[in-house]
Parts: sequence; structure tokens; C-alpha cells
Amino acid sequence: MSRLIVVSSDCHAGLPPERYREYLDPQHRATFDVALPVQIQMLQQASAKFLVADINREWRRGREADLAGAWDHNARLRVLDGDGIAGEVIFPDGITEMNTPPFGAGLSLPTEDVVPELQWAGARAHNRWLAELCAMAPQRRAGVAIVPALWDVDESVRELQWAREHGLRGVLLPCMWGKLAPYHHPKYDPLWAACQDLELVAHFHSGPAPAEDYFGGSMFAEGASLPGAVGIYISEVAWWNVRPLTFLIWGGIFERFPRLKVAITEGTSIWVPSYLELLDQRYSVTPYSAKLGDYTSHMSMKPSEYFARNVMVGASCMPRREAELRHEIGVGNIMWGSDYPHPEGSWPQTREQMVETFRGLPRAEIAAMVGGNAAAFYGFDGDALRRIADRVGPDHSMFAASTDR
Amino acid sequence: MSRLIVVSSDCHAGLPPERYREYLDPQHRATFDVALPVQIQMLQQASAKFLVADINREWRRGREADLAGAWDHNARLRVLDGDGIAGEVIFPDGITEMNTPPFGAGLSLPTEDVVPELQWAGARAHNRWLAELCAMAPQRRAGVAIVPALWDVDESVRELQWAREHGLRGVLLPCMWGKLAPYHHPKYDPLWAACQDLELVAHFHSGPAPAEDYFGGSMFAEGASLPGAVGIYISEVAWWNVRPLTFLIWGGIFERFPRLKVAITEGTSIWVPSYLELLDQRYSVTPYSAKLGDYTSHMSMKPSEYFARNVMVGASCMPRREAELRHEIGVGNIMWGSDYPHPEGSWPQTREQMVETFRGLPRAEIAAMVGGNAAAFYGFDGDALRRIADRVGPDHSMFAASTDR
Repeated sequence: MSRLIVVSSDCHAGLPPERYREYLDPQHRATFDVALPVQIQMLQQASAKFLVADINREWRRGREADLAGAWDHNARLRVLDGDGIAGEVIFPDGITEMNTPPFGAGLSLPTEDVVPELQWAGARAHNRWLAELCAMAPQRRAGVAIVPALWDVDESVRELQWAREHGLRGVLLPCMWGKLAPYHHPKYDPLWAACQDLELVAHFHSGPAPAEDYFGGSMFAEGASLPGAVGIYISEVAWWNVRPLTFLIWGGIFERFPRLKVAITEGTSIWVPSYLELLDQRYSVTPYSAKLGDYTSHMSMKPSEYFARNVMVGASCMPRREAELRHEIGVGNIMWGSDYPHPEGSWPQTREQMVETFRGLPRAEIAAMVGGNAAAFYGFDGDALRRIADRVGPDHSMFAASTDR
Repeated sequence: MSRLIVVSSDCHAGLPPERYREYLDPQHRATFDVALPVQIQMLQQASAKFLVADINREWRRGREADLAGAWDHNARLRVLDGDGIAGEVIFPDGITEMNTPPFGAGLSLPTEDVVPELQWAGARAHNRWLAELCAMAPQRRAGVAIVPALWDVDESVRELQWAREHGLRGVLLPCMWGKLAPYHHPKYDPLWAACQDLELVAHFHSGPAPAEDYFGGSMFAEGASLPGAVGIYISEVAWWNVRPLTFLIWGGIFERFPRLKVAITEGTSIWVPSYLELLDQRYSVTPYSAKLGDYTSHMSMKPSEYFARNVMVGASCMPRREAELRHEIGVGNIMWGSDYPHPEGSWPQTREQMVETFRGLPRAEIAAMVGGNAAAFYGFDGDALRRIADRVGPDHSMFAASTDR
């Protein structure tokens, strides 16, 4: 029993773009055939814009067989076993800027320059394939269905029912709403009701941000970008990922749907203490806010109390600093993640990076953050995870404090 | 010498709307006559939308003579003397949602639903009047010129020269750029050069935010607003105020203009430690960010170092918690403010609120935060301030720690 159950709250899977064709509804395949080369070209341009095409190509060299785990069942099992991971939560977009569903149905779920019907079609194609992938190892894989929920709430609720019936465990919602209704709008109540009743975790995953502000036009456009664009992007992107939570909390969503589960994934966890302090301070009416009238009576709890009860942080790529802040963040609200197979993730140095992050902390706290919290939140079968961990999990002794670090 | 020199880094002044007419260029007066009733109606609707018209009316009752200090020289001197304030930095928009310049030239400087030429005309009208107001007490008043800088950089630089020649000490820039170029764009370099060379502090003042996201349409539109709108607004508004700083730091503006002074005003100061930690962490390339390529070599210092050297926080309505965090924020970067004559400000309880915030702290630190920092940053005449403070300033003994609090 000295091996830890590790659950990665943030992994990715996706087919090579051309292979989504067979999962699409037949009426969209002709459009797919026309759009595919354009999509591939745009993804390549975005990679060039970030000036990282060479870096990523270098990183991938010699790892092709393991990266195939982005879509291949057996390769994926082998890689996760090697990384010591018993269970995983699976988002779209397998390898960064590749393996993304068609028609703008990938992680960022934009609301501009997409056709809603096609985006839905791309999302459904991915969800069908993902359900198959998860069914091959249902005790280890919690799949997250893509749901472009901003266009039509009824259609979204139907997709949630489909996801539940096909064994998926959560839904990915757009972080940014563009000109559509933000998440405090009461029109979304049936969506939250369905998440709660079907026990599907609602996810916001880091990535989207107003790239046109940073790069002087679309991230996909040709041409030189503005100085500092990348620095601004990586400084702001977590805020855009957390932003929906501000709308959910103040909108009273957790008041009306007390069993709703929300995960904020790959947006770091360092923002949590100051964010909750800010919201609680705003919730406690002060002389400075009295002029605003009543804006709290629809909420029976403080923002930090809703957070503690309803929200988990998918803490991918978790640095030591965040482990040190675990009590301010909430030990029970942190879920470590490996971000496989993304190059910013911990794979293939997961053990080393885990040790760097968690060394010397109390065993029970490590166990909660690297797996126990996620296992409970997503409803994994604990006995099944234990059997897998006994074979592949890291030994707790590796976290023993050592004086030379 | 036991009286403290107090400088408010955040006060407001503005004419009753109809009195801006005489300060407008003559060719815009006919348009002004048509627009004035519409402006007044929109401001009243906004007040009603926030459900605060009654609260503000009640707050103003019996204070009319003192609130006239929003535009009246003698009333203003009397009120500031009574509040113990020797010097002040003056922004537009005298009394909240009233006394704002015409044509969208007030604090929020929107880029939509305005005509650039008219917004400029409104700004110039205010700047002319403000220069007169400041000239009546130049040792006590540092006026901030309104500069809608996003439309035309050359025109902005000319207004900066006018402001300098007419004794103003800073410029107010829009926090939000809409569809125009953000502040890391090199086209703004002449603006930063002019701020630096003319010794004008560049300001971003809290207030603007994407109200259409919160209220389901313009803040000025009729109709019921969405639940939680006010809570979201007050939770996000400081972020929108700080956002330009992220673009300035990563854009290398402080690298190219090392003597540029920037103040972030009325956005609280509680964000500073976590903000700087985030930016410094992003600046230090990690395994997680290596895939992004080189995005730091144009900056010779860490983001927190630029902040310490170039940026001050106008900490209006400063709660005790922020005084406790002063070393993490930077004792030398905090400038207390009263926000007179806004109802969320400390007036007319300035002494009581100052004591609540600063009681028991070291004298030198209090002196720096309540006045010394601002006096140096804005170039006030220290001897003149001392003479005024000897007459009106609060006695330091009021900050002595007491055990019953």
C-alpha cells in the first residue's frame, strides 16, 4: 500500500485531423473534405506565429511512438503506466496545435469565425470517438465531452444526456462568450440542472484569450506579431479561464444548483487565495460599496464557501510554490495533472517533477492532491484504481524530504 | 512638525454639465446644445440601473455646499482643509455620474458610441477649465488632463504639450481600447516619450469595464439587469484597470522609457503582490513555457523591478488589509487617496478612516503612504505643502496604537 494512486486531472486526446471524417454525420463530410486542408494550414501558421514550430518539432523527435498515445489505446496505456498514472481526465486537442476536432470544435471553442451547426458537428464527432476510447479502459478514463453550449441550451442539454449515456464524465464549456450571453444569464439554468442531475463535471480549460489584442490581429494571421505578445498572453490566459467562475458565483448558480461540480483546469492554482479574498471582500458590504445597493441577498454563502464546496482546480504543471500555498488554496480543491501529451506537461519527467513539487509534504495531503481528490470528484472506482496503482503507481518513499534539494 | 503632510492621489473635479459649454471650441457648441439633454438622461438612467439613485440622493442631502467643491475653488479649499489634505491629484467626473465632460470625455473614455473629434473637444474643454482651477492653488493641485490617446498619437502629443504649458501634471488614458490598438503597439512610443520628457504622469483610473457583459446590454439601457451584475462588476473592475500595465511591461515600454511614470488609481492595491509574482514567474522561463520560444530578451529587468521603479498605486479607499500588505506591495509605491467628492470615498470621515487603516504603523511609513510618496511622484513643492500641512494636517498622534481596537 505504499504506492500512490495518481489521477491526472488534465490529459488530452484527439485523432489525427483527417480521421475525424468517419465520426462526422455524413451530411458534413463534403464540407469536411474542403475545410481540412485549410484547417491544417491555419494550425501550422499559428505554430509559426508563436515562433515555436522548431521547438516543438525538436521536442517530438524520437517520441513519435509515445505521442501516438494521443489517439491510440495501447500506446496511451503504456505511456500512462510508465508515468505512474492510474486514472486520467481527458480533454480534446491531443498534441498541441494538432489532433484537434474540425470546424473550430477544439479546446478554445471560439464563437467567431465558426458556423454553429458545424462546430456542433465537430464536437459530436470528437465525443463519439472519445466515448469509444474511454470504453476501452473505463476504470481509468474519464472523458470530457465538447459542448459549445453558448448557441442553444436545449441542444446542449441533449448532448449532455448523450454524453452520460455513453459513459463520459464531464463537459467542456467555452471560456469566452464573445457577443453571446455570459454564464450568469438565467437562460443557462437547464444546462446547470443537467450537469448536476447527470453528475457531469462542468469544465473550463485554459487556452482561450483575446489573441487579437496581443498579436495585432488573429493569432492565425501571417505577419510579425507585436513585441511582448507572448508574455501578455501567458500572463492573462489564466484570468480568462477563471473568468466564468466569477459569473457563476455572483450569478447565484451555486446557490440554485448546490451539487453542481465545476473544474477550472490548467489555469494554475496560484490565483485562488487572492481571488477568493477579493470576492469575499466584495461580498462583505463596506462603506465603499454601500452606494451600490443590495447585490448580495441572492447568495446565502460567501464566494469562498461556494468555491470550497463546488469547485476544483485542475492544477496541471503544478510548481512547488502552489504546493506551499495548498492550505490557502484548499488541499481538498487541488487536483494535480500531467497534461500529457502536451510539451508543457510533466510527461515524460512526471516522477521527477512530482517530487520537486510535493517532496516532504504530509503523505495524506500528497495522496489527496495527486489522486484522491480527483478520484472522488469524478467518481472513479477506488478499488479498480487501487489495483492499477499497485502495479504502476509511484512509491510514496520518493517524496521523502532530502536535504540536498 | 507633528502634523502629517497628506496628499490625496485621487480626487475628482468637474463642472455641472451645462457649464462646459463656454470652454468648448465654438464650432462644437451647437452640437453640445443638442447633446446635453441626452447626456443628462443617460446619466440618470445609468444611476437608476445601478438601483442607487435613492442612496446617492440621500447621501447628498445636506452636503450640497461641500459637494460644490467639485467645481468651486473656495468650497474645495474649505473641504480639503477640513479633511486635513494639503495636496491633491485631480481627475475628471466631479460627483459620481454627474459633472462629467460632454461627448464621452469623462473618466471611462469609451471607444464605442463616441465621435473621436467630439470626444477630443469635450476633453479639451475640461482640460481648459481644470487648468484654471489648478492655477488658483497651484501648490495644492496636480491636475490630470483627459487624453483620448487611442485615436491619434500625434494629436495626443500636442495635447500633452498644451497640458504641460498650462501647469497640469499628468494625463488620464483610456483603460480599455475596444477595437483600437492596445498599449504595447509601437505606434504609441511618441506618447510615452512625451510623458517622460514633459514629466507628466500617465494614469489609468478605475471605472471602465465591459458593462454589456454584466448587465445584458449597455449599462445605460433601460430594463432589468442580470442577477449578480453588480457583484461581477466590482470583482472585475480592478483587473480592467490594471490590464494596460500588463501590456506596458511586456511591451518593453519601461525598458525604452525608463523615466516614464505610471499611476494605477482607485483599483485597490491588494492585487499587487500576486500580480507581480505571476508576471515574474512568467518571466522566468520554466519547463512549462519553453515551448513558447524567446519572449523575454527585450526586457533587461523582471516585471516586478519595472513596477518598483516606474509605477505607483493610487490607493483610494484603502482598507486596513492593504496597509498590512504594504511591504509586499511596496511602501514606496502606495499613495493614499480620499476620492473626494465620490460617495465611496473617505470624505467626510477621512480622519477616522485613515486611523482605521494606518493605526500603529511606523511613522515614516505612514508619512510616505499618506503624502510623501505622492508629493515626490508628482513634483509638489515640499516646503509649500509643509506650510499648508502645519495648518490643516492631521496630528500624527492620532495613529498611536490603542488596545481597544
